[in-house]
Amino acid sequence: MKKFKNVSLYSSTGLKRVDKIALQVLEILENIGINVFLTESLAGMNVKKKLIKSDSYILKNTDLLISIGGDGSLLSLARKFGRHGLPIMGINLGSLGFLTDVRPEELTTSLIDVFKGEYSKEERFFLESSVGDTKKKNIALNEIVIHSGSVAQLIEYELFIDNNFVFRQKADGLIISTPTGSTAYSLSGGGSIIHPDVGAISIIPMFPHSLSSSPLVINKECEMKLEIVDTKKSMLSFDSHDSIILKRGDVVSIKKADKPLNLIHPLDHDFYSACRDKLGWSMNIS
Amino acid sequence: MKKFKNVSLYSSTGLKRVDKIALQVLEILENIGINVFLTESLAGMNVKKKLIKSDSYILKNTDLLISIGGDGSLLSLARKFGRHGLPIMGINLGSLGFLTDVRPEELTTSLIDVFKGEYSKEERFFLESSVGDTKKKNIALNEIVIHSGSVAQLIEYELFIDNNFVFRQKADGLIISTPTGSTAYSLSGGGSIIHPDVGAISIIPMFPHSLSSSPLVINKECEMKLEIVDTKKSMLSFDSHDSIILKRGDVVSIKKADKPLNLIHPLDHDFYSACRDKLGWSMNIS
Amino acid sequence: MKKFKNVSLYSSTGLKRVDKIALQVLEILENIGINVFLTESLAGMNVKKKLIKSDSYILKNTDLLISIGGDGSLLSLARKFGRHGLPIMGINLGSLGFLTDVRPEELTTSLIDVFKGEYSKEERFFLESSVGDTKKKNIALNEIVIHSGSVAQLIEYELFIDNNFVFRQKADGLIISTPTGSTAYSLSGGGSIIHPDVGAISIIPMFPHSLSSSPLVINKECEMKLEIVDTKKSMLSFDSHDSIILKRGDVVSIKKADKPLNLIHPLDHDFYSACRDKLGWSMNIS
Amino acid sequence: MKKFKNVSLYSSTGLKRVDKIALQVLEILENIGINVFLTESLAGMNVKKKLIKSDSYILKNTDLLISIGGDGSLLSLARKFGRHGLPIMGINLGSLGFLTDVRPEELTTSLIDVFKGEYSKEERFFLESSVGDTKKKNIALNEIVIHSGSVAQLIEYELFIDNNFVFRQKADGLIISTPTGSTAYSLSGGGSIIHPDVGAISIIPMFPHSLSSSPLVINKECEMKLEIVDTKKSMLSFDSHDSIILKRGDVVSIKKADKPLNLIHPLDHDFYSACRDKLGWSMNIS
Repeated sequence: MKKFKNVSLYSSTGLKRVDKIALQVLEILENIGINVFLTESLAGMNVKKKLIKSDSYILKNTDLLISIGGDGSLLSLARKFGRHGLPIMGINLGSLGFLTDVRPEELTTSLIDVFKGEYSKEERFFLESSVGDTKKKNIALNEIVIHSGSVAQLIEYELFIDNNFVFRQKADGLIISTPTGSTAYSLSGGGSIIHPDVGAISIIPMFPHSLSSSPLVINKECEMKLEIVDTKKSMLSFDSHDSIILKRGDVVSIKKADKPLNLIHPLDHDFYSACRDKLGWSMNIS
Repeated sequence: MKKFKNVSLYSSTGLKRVDKIALQVLEILENIGINVFLTESLAGMNVKKKLIKSDSYILKNTDLLISIGGDGSLLSLARKFGRHGLPIMGINLGSLGFLTDVRPEELTTSLIDVFKGEYSKEERFFLESSVGDTKKKNIALNEIVIHSGSVAQLIEYELFIDNNFVFRQKADGLIISTPTGSTAYSLSGGGSIIHPDVGAISIIPMFPHSLSSSPLVINKECEMKLEIVDTKKSMLSFDSHDSIILKRGDVVSIKKADKPLNLIHPLDHDFYSACRDKLGWSMNIS
Repeated sequence: MKKFKNVSLYSSTGLKRVDKIALQVLEILENIGINVFLTESLAGMNVKKKLIKSDSYILKNTDLLISIGGDGSLLSLARKFGRHGLPIMGINLGSLGFLTDVRPEELTTSLIDVFKGEYSKEERFFLESSVGDTKKKNIALNEIVIHSGSVAQLIEYELFIDNNFVFRQKADGLIISTPTGSTAYSLSGGGSIIHPDVGAISIIPMFPHSLSSSPLVINKECEMKLEIVDTKKSMLSFDSHDSIILKRGDVVSIKKADKPLNLIHPLDHDFYSACRDKLGWSMNIS
Repeated sequence: MKKFKNVSLYSSTGLKRVDKIALQVLEILENIGINVFLTESLAGMNVKKKLIKSDSYILKNTDLLISIGGDGSLLSLARKFGRHGLPIMGINLGSLGFLTDVRPEELTTSLIDVFKGEYSKEERFFLESSVGDTKKKNIALNEIVIHSGSVAQLIEYELFIDNNFVFRQKADGLIISTPTGSTAYSLSGGGSIIHPDVGAISIIPMFPHSLSSSPLVINKECEMKLEIVDTKKSMLSFDSHDSIILKRGDVVSIKKADKPLNLIHPLDHDFYSACRDKLGWSMNIS
């Protein structure tokens, strides 16, 4: 595998614990001759100021980004830098994440292995949406949710897939999820867990006002169109983070983004093991 | 598209209505110079005896099989002949099926179009299972179910996917479903609807005795191994039709069969339309 | 049964159709010597102005309230007048409601029967909530929902029932529903349908972030306390209609209100028939 | 509370561990002057033979029955003796049960308290069924299940409640559950958890072949009639234990049995605590 030479560190959590791990990473990597920069998210750390680099510098001069924190930090990093193709690896804060699988207890070994080229690379895809004819795209790694902005307020919409009419539905909203998002919000909404190497998108109605409304899983190459009908207010949310407001009659297009996210994993990465740990698969009633 | 010349008719229903439609098909096709045979399933029909052919004759001399009846007839035909690669088209008895989309009301037009080469071909896959080291394979187009043979009796098993341990679980059983089966038994068990062109297999626990047990969707190229542990009796069922009995300690291997099913559709075939019709997608509460 | 003498009409829909039905009711009832008033909600109707009465007049001089419209109109009337004990009957606009079971096609017969004393009376209960030590109570006939005010934003809370700790949970929210509400929002959230004569309250987590979270059904005499922990913002909604904003640390008490709603039904009222009509119970897949 | 004088011990597990606990109970109770007998289920124990008593002796001379084992042992004891009104207490084998709440670690204290009269008594109800005009009744404390006897085989039935038609349905079966059973098989089938003091019965379709099929909760005084239509084979199961075979056209009546089960609990008994322990209520995703 390609050997990384220039690394940038990132976190969105603001926890003290992150600084400690970041310093450790800095030390380990500089010892083996890797150039390490810090994104501005870590500007408060007690390090030489010249290590802190602007986003545009990072984009140009980095071949691996490391997120320190939970899956939320990595999601945020993915939307910011990962969408441009930069590979990302996640160090968690002690408890395994679905995306962040380097444990602080094994930092030195894991990092040395990865920088020897002993790692696996996995492609995940982003969803991107545009509204009407505007060029502006918003992206999400987990899910895009269309909703009324309020709990227990119906919206009504028509869904088209590759220009075929699918259904007209009233619901609190609709979750459009990647396999990456299938263990997140989609799961609480009754969606299936989709293994990351399945090329599929899940569509899950939220509190639907219809008789029958199983989640629907479609090919990841499909293009969805959502037409908002007869609704006072509606919104689009991206990874439960950013959101934009829609007007009646707006047509939202959602499809897989062109550029994938490149996730870097230690060689012992195991999706099912994360599921067992985090989702209690091994736990029986009683 | 390839033009079909030799056609065999099949039904597993035994309904009078089928004979009437079969005679109609016979007439329409002979008028346009197609050779038509009947499988032994239609041996009771009032036609020249020489039209009835043995299975081996049919296999050798047919380039299209037509099932007359519901999805059940087509499933049975698929397991019998379709598994050898022979293309299949389904004529329903008046109400749209997920697999049988030629309506008797449009028989002449539909058949003439199809035999002019105006049709679409869709590949579906079978699941095949083997037990232990035996060579014998059983196949299913919808789903393979492992269960105790009795309602409300737990079995316990370990699931491995591509030799990775996934979970150990107690449940009434486990449904392993193709996308084709996702609108059948899997759906009643809480599985997602999987569009036929998604390359995925669904795994759905039945009345699981565990805290957390969402359906799991994996890549269709994965190989599953199920190891039965600590269970008095267990069985495998194929499309709710055939079944075999397992013993404690048996290891069941399940994977996509090598040969696909080739389904022939009229050009206006629309999966979502079938969902709307059959699953009440367009029906709101009240 | 008691014979009604003074009736007030109400609607919250503002539809033309309502005026027509209201005029019909007025005519039928005046013909049989019943005094009929209109609430201010119908002030726009083309009738003698003196028929329009203030809320306080209505409360003092009415022994039956008639809602014209869907279940939403009746819910609104119930919260406004029904909470004071005034019996309520619902005329629907053509399609059966769970609460509004007089059909416009049978208006004359139904009204004449009811005013002869041939009707059944059914008690439903309201939920009432108060926040902290305030005296102010809000009520709901269907459900009280505690939530973040935004979709896909977790709140965290502890639930106590009759002062026993039940659980601490993260979720988008929690639905506390009466049996009346069990065919409304609660149903979309996976709650059971509770027959109106079961003395029970349902508690249904919305998109819970926990492994196991079945709806919980408790005795209607129980008092619930919800303590909001560690949450930026949260809200209480009443029948998806009114709402109030909570602060971190707020303790919300919810219990059955003292006064029931008295619903008046024609003698042929049948809960299960409404379920079959409105929930598609009789419809099979295919 | 009434003071118990004559106690019988029971277990259905056949585990060595049970004998040890039974001997301990024997010793503790004889020390405080209680008469202790053993049911024949414990006949293999190494005690004086005259302690072993016949069922009819036990029924006449016992005022408290103690089950040693899991909830399964207590269910079996309840059906055998508890149905005649004899109070029952459950000692578990180390892990809390929903019904068996005396822990072996606190045996002495718990028993001494209970025999001082410091306990709480709770009534649970049995369901009883009869087929056609036969007098024979079968009972269940958790649930009665009507099913085809085979997995993935539909049965078709009509349900009447208090002689009102409810629905005609195709499904693998139907679970009729008490609140006691709501944490057992019913829960795996998507039923709500019903607190034991709610006077209700749950009706949960198993893999229903219909568009809409939420669990239904009805008043515990209701009488259900199930009419089996057009089905090759069907069965009734009682607490997943006994079962009887039905014929096409059989009408099954199910209602609350006249005599309740009297459960004896230590004073610290807490239903919600058992739910938290056994159902993972306090466990978040991750």
